[in-house]
Amino acid sequence: MSGPLHDVTHLGLDADDTLWHSENRFHETHQRYHALLADHVDVGFDELERRMLETERRNLRLFGYGAKGFTLSLIETAIEVTDGAIPTSAIATIIEFGKDLLDHPVELLDGVAEAIDGFRDRGLHLTLITKGDLWHQESKVAASGIAEHFDAIEIVAEKDVATYRAILDRHGIPPEGFCMVGNSVRSDVLPVLELGGLAVHIPYELLWAHEAVAEPGEEHLVVQTLRELLDLLDH
Amino acid sequence: MSGPLHDVTHLGLDADDTLWHSENRFHETHQRYHALLADHVDVGFDELERRMLETERRNLRLFGYGAKGFTLSLIETAIEVTDGAIPTSAIATIIEFGKDLLDHPVELLDGVAEAIDGFRDRGLHLTLITKGDLWHQESKVAASGIAEHFDAIEIVAEKDVATYRAILDRHGIPPEGFCMVGNSVRSDVLPVLELGGLAVHIPYELLWAHEAVAEPGEEHLVVQTLRELLDLLDH
Repeated sequence: MSGPLHDVTHLGLDADDTLWHSENRFHETHQRYHALLADHVDVGFDELERRMLETERRNLRLFGYGAKGFTLSLIETAIEVTDGAIPTSAIATIIEFGKDLLDHPVELLDGVAEAIDGFRDRGLHLTLITKGDLWHQESKVAASGIAEHFDAIEIVAEKDVATYRAILDRHGIPPEGFCMVGNSVRSDVLPVLELGGLAVHIPYELLWAHEAVAEPGEEHLVVQTLRELLDLLDH
Repeated sequence: MSGPLHDVTHLGLDADDTLWHSENRFHETHQRYHALLADHVDVGFDELERRMLETERRNLRLFGYGAKGFTLSLIETAIEVTDGAIPTSAIATIIEFGKDLLDHPVELLDGVAEAIDGFRDRGLHLTLITKGDLWHQESKVAASGIAEHFDAIEIVAEKDVATYRAILDRHGIPPEGFCMVGNSVRSDVLPVLELGGLAVHIPYELLWAHEAVAEPGEEHLVVQTLRELLDLLDH
């Protein structure tokens, strides 16, 4: 490798919204949820979004991340904002929203398969590092068609400094040879910089509210696509 | 080590209902659920149990194991068996049942801490291998107070032959030196025997319906407590 990534031997790759689409499905679910609730309560779009986020935050300690906890929070919010007047048929529909999320086919982002091949051709070791529901993430990894290109798959409950340190230790990767690539500054960039590793931010078109940070750092690279990162490795 | 376990260098220990109580909490939740629904529908105990299990089985492919999927299945069943007549206040109560499950303190089974010390004193390497919800299992491991006695913690989506093979490969453990210990013949015993490892079954007072097998094998040891396994190692 040459350029700023010239000492990198190991790439860590986030999955949701870095390798494959995820947030657009949640976004779509929000739209369906608004449409469903509009029949039963007079609440503005922003106000309902605020209530949903409030419920999700309150439940995070117990539920963690993922579609099942999200679905339970949607049901809880629906009961609360309608003062219990939401019909049970609408609650059954919300459960179906959750199942649709879990059952949705995996769609790779444009150019991902070629970029993964390119990383491998350049001798980089690849680790997929994704946060969320174990069952759902394993299903998505299996369905992605690219799992065999990774040296390791790490599905973790939280992406913090301790988690990254444990992964690097387990695989004997020195931080200065490690570069994490993902769409979240909070989860993919900042903790890795803190460990002395490198990080590349690839913004996704949508950012989950939980992943927003007040002041993103500036010590990392930003590219638009994985393919662009591949170009960067050669220059 | 002497006796039948004399070549064992690595113990795999299941967690739910082997190290700490779990199924009794689900059992208690079933009781609360029956009591809640009794006010709204005239359905027998066995019939309601059958419907719950049917919903859980139907949802297993999408939900996997764990308290959040279980809670969603309870809500779905409640709406179905009452033909939608269950009030939303009762659905909110079911969500609270789920949160109680997730928030319950970890209670070690009797004698577990001493047995773990004893395994360590005899030079055995210990791996905790548990199935289920990543977030909840990590919370329980952290709260158990015994996590630091394990060489590795493996939280997996399914306990099948492929999973055990991957764990043994990752840690360089030869199957003939590995003995898995747990309360489920289906998850802790049969796949490990198939790999050429050893297995010890410690029945729990309650067995989750999903873990029942038609014909348990007979090629494994059965003991009543972890402490009894410790004695067995010395004789």
